[in-house]
Amino acid sequence: MSKPLLLRGGRVVTMDASRRVLDADVLIENGRIKSVGRTGGRADGRSKPTIIDCTGLVILPGLIQAHIHLCQTLFRGLADDLSLEAWLAQRIWPLEAAHTAASVHASAMLGAAELLLGGTTAILDMETVRHTGAAFAALESIGIRATAGKCLMDASSNPPSLRESTDAALSESADLCARWHGAADGRLRYCFAPRFAPSCTGALLRAVSDLAEKAAAVIHTHAAETPLELDTVKRETGHDEIAYLDSVGISGPRTALAHCVWVDTDGIARLARQETNVVHCPSSNLKLGSGLAPIPEMLAAGCRVAIGADGAPCNNRLDAFAEMRLAALLHKPRLGPETMPAAQVLELATLGGARALGLEAEIGSIEVGKCADLIVLDLGGPHAQPEEADLISRIVYSARAADVRHVIVDGRIVVRDGELKTGDVAEIRETANKEARRLRRAVGF
Amino acid sequence: MSKPLLLRGGRVVTMDASRRVLDADVLIENGRIKSVGRTGGRADGRSKPTIIDCTGLVILPGLIQAHIHLCQTLFRGLADDLSLEAWLAQRIWPLEAAHTAASVHASAMLGAAELLLGGTTAILDMETVRHTGAAFAALESIGIRATAGKCLMDASSNPPSLRESTDAALSESADLCARWHGAADGRLRYCFAPRFAPSCTGALLRAVSDLAEKAAAVIHTHAAETPLELDTVKRETGHDEIAYLDSVGISGPRTALAHCVWVDTDGIARLARQETNVVHCPSSNLKLGSGLAPIPEMLAAGCRVAIGADGAPCNNRLDAFAEMRLAALLHKPRLGPETMPAAQVLELATLGGARALGLEAEIGSIEVGKCADLIVLDLGGPHAQPEEADLISRIVYSARAADVRHVIVDGRIVVRDGELKTGDVAEIRETANKEARRLRRAVGF
Repeated sequence: MSKPLLLRGGRVVTMDASRRVLDADVLIENGRIKSVGRTGGRADGRSKPTIIDCTGLVILPGLIQAHIHLCQTLFRGLADDLSLEAWLAQRIWPLEAAHTAASVHASAMLGAAELLLGGTTAILDMETVRHTGAAFAALESIGIRATAGKCLMDASSNPPSLRESTDAALSESADLCARWHGAADGRLRYCFAPRFAPSCTGALLRAVSDLAEKAAAVIHTHAAETPLELDTVKRETGHDEIAYLDSVGISGPRTALAHCVWVDTDGIARLARQETNVVHCPSSNLKLGSGLAPIPEMLAAGCRVAIGADGAPCNNRLDAFAEMRLAALLHKPRLGPETMPAAQVLELATLGGARALGLEAEIGSIEVGKCADLIVLDLGGPHAQPEEADLISRIVYSARAADVRHVIVDGRIVVRDGELKTGDVAEIRETANKEARRLRRAVGF
Repeated sequence: MSKPLLLRGGRVVTMDASRRVLDADVLIENGRIKSVGRTGGRADGRSKPTIIDCTGLVILPGLIQAHIHLCQTLFRGLADDLSLEAWLAQRIWPLEAAHTAASVHASAMLGAAELLLGGTTAILDMETVRHTGAAFAALESIGIRATAGKCLMDASSNPPSLRESTDAALSESADLCARWHGAADGRLRYCFAPRFAPSCTGALLRAVSDLAEKAAAVIHTHAAETPLELDTVKRETGHDEIAYLDSVGISGPRTALAHCVWVDTDGIARLARQETNVVHCPSSNLKLGSGLAPIPEMLAAGCRVAIGADGAPCNNRLDAFAEMRLAALLHKPRLGPETMPAAQVLELATLGGARALGLEAEIGSIEVGKCADLIVLDLGGPHAQPEEADLISRIVYSARAADVRHVIVDGRIVVRDGELKTGDVAEIRETANKEARRLRRAVGF
């Protein structure tokens, strides 16, 4: 039982059902939010709480990114200005194939450090084919909330260096799920992560659907990112990709589909009807030239939508503030400036992310009983003035990752005064650079 | 004669003709770059230099934003999610009309503080109709390089609260030009700033062209931002807007046209032929729903292109790093992921900006004899690792305004260790908030 923690005197953006914004203290006990309101500085438990003075600061639910590839963090800047297919074949797959347990660990530490320092407290993560245990070990030590999974690639079209048999892929997934799903007091969870439809056999996808159902685990994959991907699936299966995935059980509240750029009205209706989670990755979709996902149309149709930075080499940040701002701006030329207002975008990065991780009862808002995943922002910089502006506008349009002062995950202070408490950033950087040099030499570009 | 300044041991992105990136010291004397290379720490002048240790840091030419409205900084977050025309008529014009000299000064201080802290060392600024002298006073004290001008609005369609007679507009412009063009040892310059074609009579635009020519001053206006604007100009003049502006002398190397979103092939050819400067404002064009300017096509046609954040209420940042990253990302879905690579985008924010300000011989690169406008970045954060990546990619795709450590304008240290040295940020914030409250009460929303 850890010492209680009191965030005193902040402006609290609760993201509760009535979207209240309160001047309140937040009391945390045993990793959960115990109260939100004026406590007078007292915890009602036995021990005196640790107090963080939040006067003049803004307290938000921790931001959630529902599509991340931590194993690619070391590839940042090594794969610029390529289309998805060239980006995968020429850079990402060779680099992933060259990963060792040490480089996967270093990549996860680097990415998770950036995420935590920038206010992201929970992620849905797709690792590479091998060494997923090393990523989990990093996630365990650095203290982020993560649902992660080994990447599954069993189709004959995959590069031999990453391709596995269906059985091997499923069997290692099941082992990893048994080991990590619910680890670190539930902070870590497993997801089944087929790479994308063209990389996977139908047999694998159907088995994944069953395994995920049995384990109460999330399915995390990509869908409809490029027209070429769509054509491939159509040629191989005769179906539109969203319909095909649905037909093999990759749909519904348990499933998170990253991108969904090329989805038509029927596809949107299907995603809404099945309550499948769509993960909007605006920076990635721009950088790879993939296109603009019809997110406002999906929201209007009732789809569940989250956001994500994707991997560092197609972004090149892992910055929830950058993704929020871009999600707010990007759709306005097509649909008008009132499209995707700040309040709606903040929902995607909190409640939407919580749903995509299957954790809507646990995270995504500041409410009594939920896990204590919170961030504290200092919006005192010139770039976020004047205070006359709507607070949610200031958070979405003006705030920056560097405005994050404190970060709490599961009741534990992981960032304090802008400094990572659960890892040594200099050491993380040094190890990351050493491993990146090795990887680059190994692939020869 | 000020004490020499030595930036020792950094990685210098020169932006010179061969785009050299050097491990070098930069020696500054009398506001100019005296040498770039290994000095062994010695200045060759009489006095020992002030030394800034730049080991492990990156030295860049100061970033230049060629379209800013400092007078609107106080309106940040007070005009979200509106189209240009509604944004102007319902919010910006009433707020501008309510400005006093004190609020214009406070607005300029707030904006300039954000700009300097974020690595922007020079701007082309459009103020409002009144109190432009107060803005210049702020710019003089805070130490940014600025070319600024009073906004000109003499057409009968303008709101009465801002409309002036042609003579009054021109006469005050000429007075301001006489007072401020070349002030602060040339750091401040005047620009003639007709708001946009629909706000101005042909007589005013022609007179502006003459006055600017005589004064060797820049003309700063908006053009082709929305289809409605284009239609208005077509209806009133019978011409396409770019051709119309050209016909009244608003074109050529002395002219900077913000936006140019709705320009066809003929317009692009004309802009290129006349060497008119186009200022790309990607965040603003998204936020107001204006559209995507055909910047890659303009660059291919040989146009001169700079970038700018526009005003705080249509962005809502004044962040050159945000604009660079967006300029790099935004055009890729339409034209392919190899469009607008990092190196090209960095040119827009340095050399392109220098050209738009008519200062290509003075700023925009780190070369001996140029003005000492430089910024020093710390790319040691997790978000900019690994170091294996191309440095220019790290600057454009990964770096953030908060990575700026030191900023030097005209040889003077204006930001040191992330702290503004030429103004008290707490006081700037307090005054800005007081004036923003007053403005908001004055306009009644």
